[in-house]
Amino acid sequence: MPSEYVTLEGHIIDSLILPAVLDAIVEQGASFEIEKLTVGTKNEDTSHARIKVSTDSEKELTGLIEKLRQHGANPDTVEDATLQEADVDGAFPPGFYSSTNLETEVRIGGRWVSVTHPEMDCGIVVDDGSARTLPMGEVEKGMHIVMRGLGIRVIPLEKPRGAEERQAFEFMSSDISSEKPKALLVEQVAAQMARVKEEGKRILWVAGPAVVHTGSGPDMCALIRAGYVDGFFAGNGVAAHDIESNMFGTSLGVYLEHGSPAEHGHEHHIRAINDLRRHGSFASAIDAGVFSDGIVYHLVKSDSEYLFGGSVRDDGPLPEVETDMLQVQSRLREIIWGKDGSDLVGYCIVVGTMLHGIATGNCLPASVPLVCVDINQATVTKLMDRGSFQSLGIITDVGLFIRELAEMLAPDEIKRPSADAGVRKTGAQTRN
Amino acid sequence: MPSEYVTLEGHIIDSLILPAVLDAIVEQGASFEIEKLTVGTKNEDTSHARIKVSTDSEKELTGLIEKLRQHGANPDTVEDATLQEADVDGAFPPGFYSSTNLETEVRIGGRWVSVTHPEMDCGIVVDDGSARTLPMGEVEKGMHIVMRGLGIRVIPLEKPRGAEERQAFEFMSSDISSEKPKALLVEQVAAQMARVKEEGKRILWVAGPAVVHTGSGPDMCALIRAGYVDGFFAGNGVAAHDIESNMFGTSLGVYLEHGSPAEHGHEHHIRAINDLRRHGSFASAIDAGVFSDGIVYHLVKSDSEYLFGGSVRDDGPLPEVETDMLQVQSRLREIIWGKDGSDLVGYCIVVGTMLHGIATGNCLPASVPLVCVDINQATVTKLMDRGSFQSLGIITDVGLFIRELAEMLAPDEIKRPSADAGVRKTGAQTRN
Amino acid sequence: MPSEYVTLEGHIIDSLILPAVLDAIVEQGASFEIEKLTVGTKNEDTSHARIKVSTDSEKELTGLIEKLRQHGANPDTVEDATLQEADVDGAFPPGFYSSTNLETEVRIGGRWVSVTHPEMDCGIVVDDGSARTLPMGEVEKGMHIVMRGLGIRVIPLEKPRGAEERQAFEFMSSDISSEKPKALLVEQVAAQMARVKEEGKRILWVAGPAVVHTGSGPDMCALIRAGYVDGFFAGNGVAAHDIESNMFGTSLGVYLEHGSPAEHGHEHHIRAINDLRRHGSFASAIDAGVFSDGIVYHLVKSDSEYLFGGSVRDDGPLPEVETDMLQVQSRLREIIWGKDGSDLVGYCIVVGTMLHGIATGNCLPASVPLVCVDINQATVTKLMDRGSFQSLGIITDVGLFIRELAEMLAPDEIKRPSADAGVRKTGAQTRN
Amino acid sequence: MPSEYVTLEGHIIDSLILPAVLDAIVEQGASFEIEKLTVGTKNEDTSHARIKVSTDSEKELTGLIEKLRQHGANPDTVEDATLQEADVDGAFPPGFYSSTNLETEVRIGGRWVSVTHPEMDCGIVVDDGSARTLPMGEVEKGMHIVMRGLGIRVIPLEKPRGAEERQAFEFMSSDISSEKPKALLVEQVAAQMARVKEEGKRILWVAGPAVVHTGSGPDMCALIRAGYVDGFFAGNGVAAHDIESNMFGTSLGVYLEHGSPAEHGHEHHIRAINDLRRHGSFASAIDAGVFSDGIVYHLVKSDSEYLFGGSVRDDGPLPEVETDMLQVQSRLREIIWGKDGSDLVGYCIVVGTMLHGIATGNCLPASVPLVCVDINQATVTKLMDRGSFQSLGIITDVGLFIRELAEMLAPDEIKRPSADAGVRKTGAQTRN
Repeated sequence: MPSEYVTLEGHIIDSLILPAVLDAIVEQGASFEIEKLTVGTKNEDTSHARIKVSTDSEKELTGLIEKLRQHGANPDTVEDATLQEADVDGAFPPGFYSSTNLETEVRIGGRWVSVTHPEMDCGIVVDDGSARTLPMGEVEKGMHIVMRGLGIRVIPLEKPRGAEERQAFEFMSSDISSEKPKALLVEQVAAQMARVKEEGKRILWVAGPAVVHTGSGPDMCALIRAGYVDGFFAGNGVAAHDIESNMFGTSLGVYLEHGSPAEHGHEHHIRAINDLRRHGSFASAIDAGVFSDGIVYHLVKSDSEYLFGGSVRDDGPLPEVETDMLQVQSRLREIIWGKDGSDLVGYCIVVGTMLHGIATGNCLPASVPLVCVDINQATVTKLMDRGSFQSLGIITDVGLFIRELAEMLAPDEIKRPSADAGVRKTGAQTRN
Repeated sequence: MPSEYVTLEGHIIDSLILPAVLDAIVEQGASFEIEKLTVGTKNEDTSHARIKVSTDSEKELTGLIEKLRQHGANPDTVEDATLQEADVDGAFPPGFYSSTNLETEVRIGGRWVSVTHPEMDCGIVVDDGSARTLPMGEVEKGMHIVMRGLGIRVIPLEKPRGAEERQAFEFMSSDISSEKPKALLVEQVAAQMARVKEEGKRILWVAGPAVVHTGSGPDMCALIRAGYVDGFFAGNGVAAHDIESNMFGTSLGVYLEHGSPAEHGHEHHIRAINDLRRHGSFASAIDAGVFSDGIVYHLVKSDSEYLFGGSVRDDGPLPEVETDMLQVQSRLREIIWGKDGSDLVGYCIVVGTMLHGIATGNCLPASVPLVCVDINQATVTKLMDRGSFQSLGIITDVGLFIRELAEMLAPDEIKRPSADAGVRKTGAQTRN
Repeated sequence: MPSEYVTLEGHIIDSLILPAVLDAIVEQGASFEIEKLTVGTKNEDTSHARIKVSTDSEKELTGLIEKLRQHGANPDTVEDATLQEADVDGAFPPGFYSSTNLETEVRIGGRWVSVTHPEMDCGIVVDDGSARTLPMGEVEKGMHIVMRGLGIRVIPLEKPRGAEERQAFEFMSSDISSEKPKALLVEQVAAQMARVKEEGKRILWVAGPAVVHTGSGPDMCALIRAGYVDGFFAGNGVAAHDIESNMFGTSLGVYLEHGSPAEHGHEHHIRAINDLRRHGSFASAIDAGVFSDGIVYHLVKSDSEYLFGGSVRDDGPLPEVETDMLQVQSRLREIIWGKDGSDLVGYCIVVGTMLHGIATGNCLPASVPLVCVDINQATVTKLMDRGSFQSLGIITDVGLFIRELAEMLAPDEIKRPSADAGVRKTGAQTRN
Repeated sequence: MPSEYVTLEGHIIDSLILPAVLDAIVEQGASFEIEKLTVGTKNEDTSHARIKVSTDSEKELTGLIEKLRQHGANPDTVEDATLQEADVDGAFPPGFYSSTNLETEVRIGGRWVSVTHPEMDCGIVVDDGSARTLPMGEVEKGMHIVMRGLGIRVIPLEKPRGAEERQAFEFMSSDISSEKPKALLVEQVAAQMARVKEEGKRILWVAGPAVVHTGSGPDMCALIRAGYVDGFFAGNGVAAHDIESNMFGTSLGVYLEHGSPAEHGHEHHIRAINDLRRHGSFASAIDAGVFSDGIVYHLVKSDSEYLFGGSVRDDGPLPEVETDMLQVQSRLREIIWGKDGSDLVGYCIVVGTMLHGIATGNCLPASVPLVCVDINQATVTKLMDRGSFQSLGIITDVGLFIRELAEMLAPDEIKRPSADAGVRKTGAQTRN
């Protein structure tokens, strides 16, 4: 029977790494022998395991080793990674190594090289002794692509060790349910965001239209002004409804300040889009006085990077909305990795969107904490599926969540429209 | 062809009464002729319609007339209601008139008598010239029961007339969606509650366990203290988790103040129930110092009426939890109709419960505004199904909703536990 | 006070047209006088109303008239529509008329001209005496655009008249709930599809990935083979998972025939996409034997038109997936309107997708029956929001729904993989 | 520092028992030393661990030991269990041991005695050397109650070992999602039910009203006739709507055969309940010819045990509906444990109900496979929360699920009403 030794190191027992590895072996109908197991006898100590894995065929063995590696069980056999030249543009050679979102190393010329920009479902290209992930669409003929097999090492994430971090972690990552102390969840997200900013890292927001419809636009603005929004990724709808609400005071045709329907409010978003297209860009429209508040306004006026990625259901779309999907993904990666590709975002929060949230989850390394807030349990569950230990799903009302968050992080920046001030019906009408 | 004339009066066009009547006729395959239609030519004017309805058989005609009556189209033929003596205890005679939750009159001895306590799916009993609804289980042999047929008149609800009320109404009652300006919805509920209290009417709360799990117990307490909770209807779980949270600081085994799991927190609710059973009543346990804060505590200490109705999934249950369903319904009606049966509640809000919410909806007259707040759209939709013009469904987070509501209505009464005060782990432990 | 007369005709009472008009007037704080109201005295008869509408200002009057028109209340004043030349590419002149999805006429040179391709949120361009809707992005400088104001007439949809159609309608369009007789709903959709095909009209399917994940791919194939899928609109995921399932027998890495996880199944979809990209098109890959069954295979082999529109979360994407959103919308309109733009689809069914479903709802005229099937109530509610009388929302399991539908419409075409036949593990593995 | 040794045995690594134990220790801020760890080197081998646990105080140690025991880590110190006499009726002494739903042993007089009827959140009473669980409400003064502390042993469930069972298990118990191959899930449930019946064990069904509303009544009947329903637990609504549908052909006032609304169908369920109450029992009503088909009819006519447990929202209720909650729970336990209390049900399926499903989950030992089918993800998640390795949550349409299941298990017993046969409108009407 073909067999191979794999080795695991770290907190492999309570981080569930060893159990996951044994599970995977049994699941495939393979067998294992634990050749050696040194268990850290104290909480701080790391453990070490060496396991012999046997299968019926070489082919199965290769497949299984591949799978175990994703759990951090790396084969003992040490060889360089196999490289193959891409034979066409835009696709990998068959048998290419498909990447995970975990820290990864490939062995090139006898030494282990770290793969930059870990991301799921990419290939790895080796160039001049360095290695990086590469989306399928960016393959160019002649590139050197890492093939699956030996010479690849994946470093799994571990659970936090201290009792305190552990408690917070347990609470945060336990079963996703709408029945959690909500104010406490908001507090914890606020505390995490504050810590990330203290560490000089960036926060990426991914938002759906509920942010505007639920009336939390002014709270988002406060967070932008207070510096908690370094990156902002959303669709055409978010920008259109935000601008509409600042031009007309309505969202989905309803006045956000008193809830009554606008006279021909259903048309407001289409008229807002048309006006913006006439000006050609957000900045030009702002200069022309078309709108002077709101999320888009504050994004433009701040240093935040923003990206509006189109979708098939869009009206218009607005200027600056990127309508080509490959361009959107490429620009999203730039925001995630920051200037020079080395300023990785420190925190990512997804509010009220499945589409843009999954897009972001696809590109994000597992090491970045990802929080998903939605009123729909299915959306949260789906986004957390790809999650890591750092992930947190919160089933709650997006509007009230952002409101509470802004009150904690940016109380001085909140300027909510009062019922008898702000945008007036008549004022809005004169714009047309 | 058998036929009958029916008459409608009021704002029958824009309150959708006339359309509903014509719809019902067409649906049954019957035909109609509008004999006379006077439409109020101005907004304030009422309209009047007289319609001839024809069907294939007498039987169908009777059925159709029965149905039209529920829309407020009363037959021209004026006869006394048919009464029949109940021949058994606990059930009506076949062919009894099954009531709606609208204001209803029956004709007895040549005059129209108002039926007290309108409620769905009851019978009507006539006693000494007066008429009232009667639940099936309370029928006694020999009672005089109204049979379906002539001599019954239903008065439909109308939409509010003024532009301002209308706008509020439209906003409130429009499609149930989670994408509404949430802070505004909270404000409107707060304004309605304030108005109801000003009018000297009572507010009935119907609550599910999410009220405790989401950490909004202290906010509910503030509302009780501020006088916004005249009646409180819930299940064993709400009381058990509330008392648990005040004895141990946990809900579902998680510390509400910092979110970490309690040492054997999963047992807390069962120990809380056991302790309470040992004391025999909420008041005795409070006197003994078992708990000194929380929803149950404040209900006991205030003038609020409360009712905890059991269900098949209950642990324990707690003392004072009514385990017989018929008793629960009977006591619920008493709370709804108040002292002397004539102090009908002025407002009913259902938060985070389908079971107790439907129970309440079943007993409530259509004239009482009913607000349903839940994070689950299916729950809200189901409760609003039976709704009237006054009904409002809000899809949002129960915890954050109550928090915002308390901040608007009872800001001075809020005493939320801080992370380093309030119930302490160690303190809690000594109770066992 | 400025005022105008508006006229309504048809079944304006039981189709809720008159009530909607009066409602709209009251909502705006305007007043009305019903100058004349002839009500059809029988079911078949149409009614006629002439209403004087008064507002405080000319501006408000214009707005209100605009709104009433959407309910089919057209102003008495007859003038030609105002046209204005587009002054820029890609945007309308301010004040352009924003279209509904209802049949519309504009008055040009003294006669009423029907607007071709009714679609929401477009403008109307007049060219050589004819009029058509125009998406914002397709405006060219110099085009003649209809401005809002007089000279535009909207023809509202009416409810079906006959008792039988009415009953079916009532059942179908009543409150969206998961608690409906499901087999009956499937039967009614099947009957409608059969009728549409008998009438020589086309059926458009809009599908999400659940169609593949829930294992109903073979049933979709049966429906394609039996001729019930004339158009098919979906995303990259549907095609990728369908091809994956036919190359490897898995979907989301799980064998569809026996439910066990594949050895490195999580990579299957990315390898399927890579293979397809290497072949450049579905047809080339099929010719090369890469896959020989499934939805994509049968779409390619049949006469069905298909369109895969990309989104920001896509892996790859597959060849033939359109990545530019404006192109997707343009091609979707071609499928909806058919050859020569005059073969409008007769039925549209959306299964398991909100994104592509809303995109389709945006482009579809109100006259096309639209059925939305999803397990998530929020998705169904959102799609039905824009619905017309013909719309039907079904909350059910997409997989079991399509299975039952195929068994009714195409029982002889169903070829489901059995647990011990079909795609084999070993066979699949050799492809890599 | 106070410390204690605990021991674990079995497949403690891949059944996640050891990791869970270490996690629990770290979570409490305690420390551990693994004194000895023998890991089975092959798949079949069991492992053995002895761990020293240290805490800051004796009190914390006791609490932690209590918690570890629930994971199957039993303390080395061997003493008899502490017993205490109940000092009141209806409540345990403070400090009683609160049971889990796992197999448990208590040490009495120097030997380990198995606790009969394992059930969560009960106490354990020792009587004449034997031990059994006892619900709080059944405590009688003077009973000997097991106190928490030493002398109690819990035996954890292990995952299945074989690759095949493992695969099935993995598939079944993986993340709850609506995007699973549904026909396959139905097949697996059918196969499990067939196996349970072959083994001579009983199947318990717990059902909500959706079973009737979705039109799957005839399919449930087929399953009853074919012997797949040994126990049936539901509420008043299920019985009322089932009987209504068999008296009138309607459910919720809609004809189940053709979907059209009944003339005064909303009253049907209340009239059905009234009629049944007049007859006093299901059997009497059947004898009198009131209904002659349906779930209740077949339950009465078969050997199945049934239990209808009331709730606060019930109309009526029907005769035979138990309105006292404690009686319901007591009778439910009898059904679960069968004749002589020793014929434990072999399989439990919950369809379309959270209330009765949780009630059942509360009483069921962890060893009984529990399947929960619901269209609402939150319901499935909540029920599965308490689940064991054997639990399976399926998010799907209850109606179509039961239909497919009946077609697999009882194809010859299905008698669905056809559109032109079965209950007729006219026939139904004559009953009134």
